[in-house]
Amino acid sequence: MDFSLSEKVLQIAQKLRPFVDGEIVPLEPRLFAEGFGALEPELERLRGRAREMGLFSPQLPAAWGGAGLSLLELAHVGEILGRSPLGHYVFNAQAPDSGNMELLLQHGTAAQKERWLRPLAQGDLRSCFGMTEPEFAGSNPVWLGTTARREGETYVLDGHKWFTSSCEGAAFCVVMAVTAPEARPHQRASMIVVPTDAPGFSLVRNLPVMGEAGEGWLSHGEVRLSGVRVPVDHRLGEEGQGFALAQERLGPGRIHHCMRWIGICERAFDLMCRRAVTREIAPGEPLGSRPAVQDRIAESRAEIDAARLLVLHTAWRIDREGAHAAREDVSLIKFQVAGVLQRVLDRAIQVHGAYGLVDETPLGFWWRHERGARIYDGPDEVHKAAVARRILARYGLEPGPRG
Amino acid sequence: MDFSLSEKVLQIAQKLRPFVDGEIVPLEPRLFAEGFGALEPELERLRGRAREMGLFSPQLPAAWGGAGLSLLELAHVGEILGRSPLGHYVFNAQAPDSGNMELLLQHGTAAQKERWLRPLAQGDLRSCFGMTEPEFAGSNPVWLGTTARREGETYVLDGHKWFTSSCEGAAFCVVMAVTAPEARPHQRASMIVVPTDAPGFSLVRNLPVMGEAGEGWLSHGEVRLSGVRVPVDHRLGEEGQGFALAQERLGPGRIHHCMRWIGICERAFDLMCRRAVTREIAPGEPLGSRPAVQDRIAESRAEIDAARLLVLHTAWRIDREGAHAAREDVSLIKFQVAGVLQRVLDRAIQVHGAYGLVDETPLGFWWRHERGARIYDGPDEVHKAAVARRILARYGLEPGPRG
Amino acid sequence: MDFSLSEKVLQIAQKLRPFVDGEIVPLEPRLFAEGFGALEPELERLRGRAREMGLFSPQLPAAWGGAGLSLLELAHVGEILGRSPLGHYVFNAQAPDSGNMELLLQHGTAAQKERWLRPLAQGDLRSCFGMTEPEFAGSNPVWLGTTARREGETYVLDGHKWFTSSCEGAAFCVVMAVTAPEARPHQRASMIVVPTDAPGFSLVRNLPVMGEAGEGWLSHGEVRLSGVRVPVDHRLGEEGQGFALAQERLGPGRIHHCMRWIGICERAFDLMCRRAVTREIAPGEPLGSRPAVQDRIAESRAEIDAARLLVLHTAWRIDREGAHAAREDVSLIKFQVAGVLQRVLDRAIQVHGAYGLVDETPLGFWWRHERGARIYDGPDEVHKAAVARRILARYGLEPGPRG
Amino acid sequence: MDFSLSEKVLQIAQKLRPFVDGEIVPLEPRLFAEGFGALEPELERLRGRAREMGLFSPQLPAAWGGAGLSLLELAHVGEILGRSPLGHYVFNAQAPDSGNMELLLQHGTAAQKERWLRPLAQGDLRSCFGMTEPEFAGSNPVWLGTTARREGETYVLDGHKWFTSSCEGAAFCVVMAVTAPEARPHQRASMIVVPTDAPGFSLVRNLPVMGEAGEGWLSHGEVRLSGVRVPVDHRLGEEGQGFALAQERLGPGRIHHCMRWIGICERAFDLMCRRAVTREIAPGEPLGSRPAVQDRIAESRAEIDAARLLVLHTAWRIDREGAHAAREDVSLIKFQVAGVLQRVLDRAIQVHGAYGLVDETPLGFWWRHERGARIYDGPDEVHKAAVARRILARYGLEPGPRG
Repeated sequence: MDFSLSEKVLQIAQKLRPFVDGEIVPLEPRLFAEGFGALEPELERLRGRAREMGLFSPQLPAAWGGAGLSLLELAHVGEILGRSPLGHYVFNAQAPDSGNMELLLQHGTAAQKERWLRPLAQGDLRSCFGMTEPEFAGSNPVWLGTTARREGETYVLDGHKWFTSSCEGAAFCVVMAVTAPEARPHQRASMIVVPTDAPGFSLVRNLPVMGEAGEGWLSHGEVRLSGVRVPVDHRLGEEGQGFALAQERLGPGRIHHCMRWIGICERAFDLMCRRAVTREIAPGEPLGSRPAVQDRIAESRAEIDAARLLVLHTAWRIDREGAHAAREDVSLIKFQVAGVLQRVLDRAIQVHGAYGLVDETPLGFWWRHERGARIYDGPDEVHKAAVARRILARYGLEPGPRG
Repeated sequence: MDFSLSEKVLQIAQKLRPFVDGEIVPLEPRLFAEGFGALEPELERLRGRAREMGLFSPQLPAAWGGAGLSLLELAHVGEILGRSPLGHYVFNAQAPDSGNMELLLQHGTAAQKERWLRPLAQGDLRSCFGMTEPEFAGSNPVWLGTTARREGETYVLDGHKWFTSSCEGAAFCVVMAVTAPEARPHQRASMIVVPTDAPGFSLVRNLPVMGEAGEGWLSHGEVRLSGVRVPVDHRLGEEGQGFALAQERLGPGRIHHCMRWIGICERAFDLMCRRAVTREIAPGEPLGSRPAVQDRIAESRAEIDAARLLVLHTAWRIDREGAHAAREDVSLIKFQVAGVLQRVLDRAIQVHGAYGLVDETPLGFWWRHERGARIYDGPDEVHKAAVARRILARYGLEPGPRG
Repeated sequence: MDFSLSEKVLQIAQKLRPFVDGEIVPLEPRLFAEGFGALEPELERLRGRAREMGLFSPQLPAAWGGAGLSLLELAHVGEILGRSPLGHYVFNAQAPDSGNMELLLQHGTAAQKERWLRPLAQGDLRSCFGMTEPEFAGSNPVWLGTTARREGETYVLDGHKWFTSSCEGAAFCVVMAVTAPEARPHQRASMIVVPTDAPGFSLVRNLPVMGEAGEGWLSHGEVRLSGVRVPVDHRLGEEGQGFALAQERLGPGRIHHCMRWIGICERAFDLMCRRAVTREIAPGEPLGSRPAVQDRIAESRAEIDAARLLVLHTAWRIDREGAHAAREDVSLIKFQVAGVLQRVLDRAIQVHGAYGLVDETPLGFWWRHERGARIYDGPDEVHKAAVARRILARYGLEPGPRG
Repeated sequence: MDFSLSEKVLQIAQKLRPFVDGEIVPLEPRLFAEGFGALEPELERLRGRAREMGLFSPQLPAAWGGAGLSLLELAHVGEILGRSPLGHYVFNAQAPDSGNMELLLQHGTAAQKERWLRPLAQGDLRSCFGMTEPEFAGSNPVWLGTTARREGETYVLDGHKWFTSSCEGAAFCVVMAVTAPEARPHQRASMIVVPTDAPGFSLVRNLPVMGEAGEGWLSHGEVRLSGVRVPVDHRLGEEGQGFALAQERLGPGRIHHCMRWIGICERAFDLMCRRAVTREIAPGEPLGSRPAVQDRIAESRAEIDAARLLVLHTAWRIDREGAHAAREDVSLIKFQVAGVLQRVLDRAIQVHGAYGLVDETPLGFWWRHERGARIYDGPDEVHKAAVARRILARYGLEPGPRG
């Protein structure tokens, strides 16, 4: 066992950390005051800087212009980018594009890669992922209402999606749709690339989520598909493989989320400590002299450090044994780190007092928008049950009906 | 001991509960989509209905047009109004006006009452309360930067306030200002009524709090006072009594907050249960059949019921022994109920899944705006320390320095 | 609503509290050092004092020599007795005798009352209750292995019980046994009084529970019944009513447990505060000056006060509407108060430091022996599910299979 | 970063794990039923087996007969030994001897090593460590009442100690005593080896801790020193170095405790899972099909895995940078892992139901005896404050008075 960071990671961190803290963080007040749209020109400029640093699309192999990192190395990068709500975007490592790139890379045909992965990798366009539906519980991912009926060499899609994040401004949407309603649950759906300008594809609205409809990349769309026609070669992988691909997409995807959350935690921790030493409760008495504040700092430090190691261990395992072998670990980190995230944000806000509620730090933004962390990509309950069932199966428990 | 509700409370509840659920709740989607300003005409209409019901300004004695209720009786009313973010406003029982009315009623001169309490009681104007300052920790309420220098029969006020809730549109602000900088800490400040159109009084901005600057009654102002001149007879109570009055204002004020929070809890509980029986996880399997959901419902029920009784007991004690005798209880309910509130909201959102994040229920609104409940009117830590010190003093602990 | 205590309760409390604190509490060190048996002569003397005070068997109606209290009044008494592990015993209000007396009083025939209730009420003998079985989950109370086969006017009992508390030294055991194996689950069992000297009834051992096998009243027996023969008139109530009677026995029984736990909490709170003011961390710095200690005191105060009100409210409701109407409340207090109990004990021990682990206070005794509070009489999970199902049924949820 | 175990650790684990589970665990019921003394012959036999395996005193360098492991490697061994309350004892790696060996190894003179380390390392005698005193708070380790007055080449010791673990049967005690009352607090005390048969050294009693006075190695002594005379060359290290040595002893000592706790957690987890698959709640319905049980399993898995990595990371850091550099980490793991330990034990007991309270598993033993884990070696509060102060110092907080 060796916990030391690779030279490669250290070198990247040395460049990345000051860039995030020095160039991206200062944009945050404008994000909160003016919205994502107003920032786009500035973000485009920073994306140029990211390209110059050779760290644009870091999640991709070198052949596709990426940094060619292992998942474990990438995890450290993700933590640093996570320090700001804009970090991943500037480096073209943002969800949902990052997951779509991974999908295309592993399951796209050469033509699909050229058509969709290439411009995504270069940051020339954005994409979205249409899975969740308002009428069906997201915690049961095989239960879908959207259909893709085959007519010769064409799929005709009909359905209703929401929480289609970043749909506004996206060039295409990877849509989960039922292609074989009579098949076994896990083989009913396929993934199909649908250009957002296809007739019948409409972004109904950006959902008002926690007080904000947002814009562009920072929004969650409600989408209708009404008789949308796309050629059969827009399908990723085999017919019926949709669920399997989604699972595969989620493995590394959860590492990305978790490390981004660790980054958020570190930033919140940093803000909490700064506040503790600069804010006085009485003349000459800094907040940080108070045990209630010290407790929060110590507990956060322990929880963040433990959570990070758990995620890194999972990334290491995926690197060595593949996402399938590590799926129990992946479920474990999902609920564990989401819980740490919420507690650390809560403590950081409490230490800030009223100032923690004002949109002059990103704490309130994360309090609102990461409440979803315990829900999206599978709510806590689903992951806990999945972990426990796998463990108990090793002790001999027969797989029974859920519940 | 008798836990039965008085006939008076039962009769009011019978009228009030259907009105809140049937007339006020349906306005909520518009509140979240269009903001407070757009709703004002509609709210004015409902205020008319409230007057017809004889329940407008219920917190006031009958002589001032109120319902003449004991604090215990009023607590039940406050819970029902709390079921909607608009409930208290419609009945003119909203903070900060409600607290200002109590102040004026108890400490105003006849002239002050006629000039400021009368129109407040009738809902003809709104007011605000200027206490918190950005430069000074709210957890130490005797440490203020705003000054009111006396020049003959005039006070000249200079200072900087924030979280001056509902300042936009208010006719006057009750300002806490230091009138005797050399006096003992608890006798330095006075409360002074400052018309918001007085020269030198400026609302700098509505603070962006948890993503929203809000408007009108639903906003938190940042305020500058620069050489604002008001006659000495704008002072409430004696010079140097500001802190004592603030404490007195907070006693019943915390009952109001706590019962409003109980109302929020009950509404969230109601939404959670409705969701549990209507949302299916799989065909024929309602969410509510899941033990993780059942746990949340049972734990919430226990916590809400226990919290309500604790608040009602405190109100009963204030009615019988006065706010001073009950100040330990008042601190106790403040942190205890704020904690229950956050946990119940958290559970209700989790049971709703992604839908709980969308502004189609008030859950997200409260998640954002009641995160402050553990901070405003004294953060948890301050109340816990206050309670413990009083208890330990009875065991013989010498009052020492804080900390 | 009126939270004031009745004159009757105040008068009893005035006598009882000093007696418990002054006469019973001082015996505790001997209990921990020498065991229950060594204390019996001394306890017998105190029981005489209890009789003189007119408070022996307070739970019984005056006609049976009891104090004739409502359940609400009795609750206050139970809290005071709960301050010491020996309190209930001295006043002949201890489980399981107290529950057996209630059973006999309500469901015994005149002859049964004369034979078994009379000497129990006078404290002339002790009894036990045989329900739990090692082979069957206590959380499913209708699933039993012990049988009572009828042969003419005789029952022949065979089975295996454990956690038959206070079996050692008991004159008889109320045994739950299946009398109709083919009946519907809730109608299979009956309650039968079995003298412990009946041939075939054997106390195998006192279970080693949390390091102690205990003795006499303070023990938990493992019992074998092998062809034990008792006349049919030893059955309480009708055949098949066993489960119904057990449920009925548990309603007030849980009030008794909960108020005893509140008494334990108050004692632990008292010990914690005393320690906080007498123990110094450094010269002149009492423990209680530390915020970590203050937090624990304040949180405990809030939780205990809220929990007590919840139990009292439930007792009041049982008095007015009966145990059946209040069964949701009864489940609610069971898990809620058991949770508060464990947290308060945990805090009190932590504040005591190493001294809290030494058997010179009752804290360690309760830490060990009340860990069972979240298990006996139905584990938390069962009560939470029961509460939630009743609530959701009111929202229209179909009663489904457990799960 | 590389999380794979070294070949050396894997080989040791392969031998050790089956030995612990197959040879030591089966002795536990006798430990609980008969006490430590009755088991000694059997344990002596197993110690022989441990010697044959070449794993006796694994914490020592090869030159002293140990396994010559790094702290990181040793951590893995400690986890396996921790699976049983007897594991460390069988391998002569038990506290307090293990810490005393480390002390002697690093700070003993050649003569001291020969005299005391040699027989300890060979398991020929046992020792104890006298630090805690009943009259002084353990959370303030520089505040002591025991004195060692120098008279020529002799120290005369007077004092009162308790929680002198394993004193009964020990050959000597390493006593912390004030040698320079006027020195600065951290330089007042020295460590002195006192033979337990020295005149004036008396074991007053084994403390009754959580219901058990215990015996031999499994006991906590109360000790009086009355004019005990020992030669000056019994002092370890320099005069005044006592506190520094104690700190140094605690660094690796806490790794040992933490990994032992992880071992306990794994054992409790294992018991919980076995119970979940073997115990039925209703015919054909294993406990493990219940979500409340699944939640506990998943949460425990996440917490244990995260905690283990945190400890291993700390051990790795001590190996590379020394105990001083890692002292923040050491404080962090102390409170974090102790908390995980208590929660995992609590869940395992709850899943077992009543059976979890019976001394047929070690769960109850640990519930009682590891409640001290959050207290001994510095209570949670002290470690949290220490961690936070170090962190805040890096942010510029002036070191202030404690509190």
